[in-house]
Amino acid sequence: MNEILITSRLRYEVTERASFAFSIVAARTDHQTVTKETIDLGDDVAWTMVPYGSGTHQLLRLTVDPGELDLSYTASVTVSAQTDRPDGLDEVPFDEVPAEVLPYLNPSRYCESDRVGNFSFRLFGDTPAGYDRVKAISDWVHDNLVYESGSTDGSSSATDVLLQRAGVCRDFAHVAITLCRAIGVPARYVSGYGIGVDPQDFHGFFEAYVGTDWYLFDPTGMAQSNALVRIGYGRDAADAPFATLVGRADLLEKEITVASDGKLEKEPATASTA
Amino acid sequence: MNEILITSRLRYEVTERASFAFSIVAARTDHQTVTKETIDLGDDVAWTMVPYGSGTHQLLRLTVDPGELDLSYTASVTVSAQTDRPDGLDEVPFDEVPAEVLPYLNPSRYCESDRVGNFSFRLFGDTPAGYDRVKAISDWVHDNLVYESGSTDGSSSATDVLLQRAGVCRDFAHVAITLCRAIGVPARYVSGYGIGVDPQDFHGFFEAYVGTDWYLFDPTGMAQSNALVRIGYGRDAADAPFATLVGRADLLEKEITVASDGKLEKEPATASTA
Amino acid sequence: MNEILITSRLRYEVTERASFAFSIVAARTDHQTVTKETIDLGDDVAWTMVPYGSGTHQLLRLTVDPGELDLSYTASVTVSAQTDRPDGLDEVPFDEVPAEVLPYLNPSRYCESDRVGNFSFRLFGDTPAGYDRVKAISDWVHDNLVYESGSTDGSSSATDVLLQRAGVCRDFAHVAITLCRAIGVPARYVSGYGIGVDPQDFHGFFEAYVGTDWYLFDPTGMAQSNALVRIGYGRDAADAPFATLVGRADLLEKEITVASDGKLEKEPATASTA
Amino acid sequence: MNEILITSRLRYEVTERASFAFSIVAARTDHQTVTKETIDLGDDVAWTMVPYGSGTHQLLRLTVDPGELDLSYTASVTVSAQTDRPDGLDEVPFDEVPAEVLPYLNPSRYCESDRVGNFSFRLFGDTPAGYDRVKAISDWVHDNLVYESGSTDGSSSATDVLLQRAGVCRDFAHVAITLCRAIGVPARYVSGYGIGVDPQDFHGFFEAYVGTDWYLFDPTGMAQSNALVRIGYGRDAADAPFATLVGRADLLEKEITVASDGKLEKEPATASTA
Repeated sequence: MNEILITSRLRYEVTERASFAFSIVAARTDHQTVTKETIDLGDDVAWTMVPYGSGTHQLLRLTVDPGELDLSYTASVTVSAQTDRPDGLDEVPFDEVPAEVLPYLNPSRYCESDRVGNFSFRLFGDTPAGYDRVKAISDWVHDNLVYESGSTDGSSSATDVLLQRAGVCRDFAHVAITLCRAIGVPARYVSGYGIGVDPQDFHGFFEAYVGTDWYLFDPTGMAQSNALVRIGYGRDAADAPFATLVGRADLLEKEITVASDGKLEKEPATASTA
Repeated sequence: MNEILITSRLRYEVTERASFAFSIVAARTDHQTVTKETIDLGDDVAWTMVPYGSGTHQLLRLTVDPGELDLSYTASVTVSAQTDRPDGLDEVPFDEVPAEVLPYLNPSRYCESDRVGNFSFRLFGDTPAGYDRVKAISDWVHDNLVYESGSTDGSSSATDVLLQRAGVCRDFAHVAITLCRAIGVPARYVSGYGIGVDPQDFHGFFEAYVGTDWYLFDPTGMAQSNALVRIGYGRDAADAPFATLVGRADLLEKEITVASDGKLEKEPATASTA
Repeated sequence: MNEILITSRLRYEVTERASFAFSIVAARTDHQTVTKETIDLGDDVAWTMVPYGSGTHQLLRLTVDPGELDLSYTASVTVSAQTDRPDGLDEVPFDEVPAEVLPYLNPSRYCESDRVGNFSFRLFGDTPAGYDRVKAISDWVHDNLVYESGSTDGSSSATDVLLQRAGVCRDFAHVAITLCRAIGVPARYVSGYGIGVDPQDFHGFFEAYVGTDWYLFDPTGMAQSNALVRIGYGRDAADAPFATLVGRADLLEKEITVASDGKLEKEPATASTA
Repeated sequence: MNEILITSRLRYEVTERASFAFSIVAARTDHQTVTKETIDLGDDVAWTMVPYGSGTHQLLRLTVDPGELDLSYTASVTVSAQTDRPDGLDEVPFDEVPAEVLPYLNPSRYCESDRVGNFSFRLFGDTPAGYDRVKAISDWVHDNLVYESGSTDGSSSATDVLLQRAGVCRDFAHVAITLCRAIGVPARYVSGYGIGVDPQDFHGFFEAYVGTDWYLFDPTGMAQSNALVRIGYGRDAADAPFATLVGRADLLEKEITVASDGKLEKEPATASTA
């Protein structure tokens, strides 16, 4: 069990009345407990916290007039992942995939899994199905993509990245998700905070559904699984950007810190749920 | 109020054990009431009905061994859409879009709304916001695409169709959804049955969120809005194909009939909810 | 007849031995005469001038060791376009297109004319074939794209630009070329210098083959046709970038001036060859 | 030296006056000699033979009124490739690439080499430059694509095929060309006839420029290099389709035979020019 301390600060110059939806607040899950938390927007800014979409995570929403917006978030989060022996985590046959998990088999904007079926089967068709296959996919992504800031933008999808073989954390996650779905494994995008992310920023990784739960993978290899705090979930990064904005505002500052309150336990040699 | 009678029959030759998820059952909504319904798969086939994803609609799931699968569905559905004066249906500002509706502003696999922002603003930026703008988008799609069987396939997205200017019902819906989202209007894909669809088949259309509800549009112009029965909802057609299949089976027959039990009322000159 | 004075200066910091191929020298054509010209690279840099590809234009090639590279080009060019009555310039039927012109009917990297056949026929199928149709295409591009620096990059093709409706001069040319080829009119990319290009830089425009010759169009509307000097020709911008470089060098300065030696004649209300 | 006997027959039902340009005639090169040849179109059809584009190959052009068009071509071709030791064929540095070869370094419609630079360098950056690197690329294409009729169509490009990992001969060639150009090796598409092509049809393969000449590769592995007869050359398959047609006609029959007049010599373990 690890206690992870998070601070994130976002400052904007709002030049026209603007509405924001932020995904920056640590998720509440069976394995992730928020023990302390503050949201500070000053006294004059009203905000609401609402569940996004079907309730996968929380959005912080607010609308402000021109001026400076200064948002500080701090949290202390205990991550106590259930760990399992990877060899006990089988791939779930299609007729046993829970109906609420089925959407995560579909292609999405940044994860066009319908386009890479042969590709995924060719690379991973002979790997034993289950956790190990997802691990093989995540490792392949780690080994075959180059992490390169600025190599992609908001319109870059997994197929773009597969061709250019370079991207940032969200791209690594998109490619892994795409290869998983293409071979029949439900996979979803997760945004979050991670110790070791360099440069320190919001992070993106993914979860795959094997056995009877969602298991976590970070194909960038930047953070070990027990050093990751989840914020939001979705079909791809479009569902969990740290900020969506309608109006006009410039981001002046984004500063994230993520730290352990003590010695971070060594990553267990086991699979780990969300 | 119209009573619509539906029969759909699907026959498959299953050559290897196969699992199916069908989206063929009429949705239950505030404005669509199923008064009679039969699902007939013979005595030997066990099936379950489960809510897809976050519960948008029902999936009929079953797994069968090799042999023939013969599925008959009949329903009698009363459509009593709430109708409203279009000019009372304003566009919803971003900060008032309900959080569960927000995902329908995002780009999706077949609706890459992030790529056509300028395009949509250029065409529809000057149209009064609200129901009329969505109507203008739906009409533009009707006027600028050619309905042509076989012109697209399962990998064709709205941008492909916008370039080639030809497609089938799902493509018409995808383009309209994409232009709506690009200009800030939540829109979703709807599969269903429609009187007048030619050739008679499953149909695809869309809904946009204006005022405080989802309103219906069929950019193909094949069916009037009170002659449409909803089956499933989603970000795009990937969420509501009539059948998803894992295993091996050939479709031998697909026969759909959709009829009114009497004289179909003339379409009201008003907006109509789902 | 206009005399156009050109200076272009390019300075690079070469950090690893580098080979360059420059397309910056005014083309020699029946209607464009270079009356004075200097190429200055200092005394120590050897260079050659060679015809590119099938001889469409001249490349200035050189290889240099690390250090500064300072290239100055000046020219005085007389443009005496043959002008014709547009209504006498018919579209050339396929079997009369000269064999050397046929490649300019094919799709190319940045001009995927095979993808927009319906689109082009829908928009321009009813316009009288010939010069007027190309003019209609060029005007449509001018009216429907927004000139926006930075909106595209080296991988942006005509279909990308058609969807986002924004681009720079090369994109305007690519879209027009694509729509021409899609409707059966040979069209090629031309790089050059233009009086009135703002900000002053190398320019990109296009020529279409009608009647029995290539006629010039600038869909950006920045320069009138008798104020344009051709440098290079190609299927698209890939064939005539101002510089191609293998090695490592940073562009320190690019300064272009294009001026008339006197009063620029008013653009004739006629078609104008290359 | 091999003598290769070719017959090809194309029959069309022309339903509206139509103009054709055929690329079916064996090319004349230093290493390929046509010893006998007949072109039979009946007595009533006038045709011309003209050089395509910059003269890379010959086009058979004709225009006919409605009715049946029956084209028979026979040829006897001696292929006497110059063979070289592969290890003597170095990659040509950019500044030594002949100017007429430079266009074959550029991306083209079906070979978007600009999009896969990292990919190609990652896979082949450590392979010794020269003939062996091209051979490694051709072998990789052979090993990583599945030959599957109907898996692609006329709009499928190398990046599409790289993602779906399936295609036909033209796709195999396109992918190999794309990876060559991406790593700085000029490569061009070649259409032709090959002994062993199954099913027997027109064939597509490629040539790369190494040492001081173009060398031949067939990534499908269907035909050995001395069993291939060249027809046409180009940046990609758009430059050398067996038939281009404007008008309206249905292809009724296409029958190709390619045979050796005796025992085909075993393929030499050497590189072979065009």
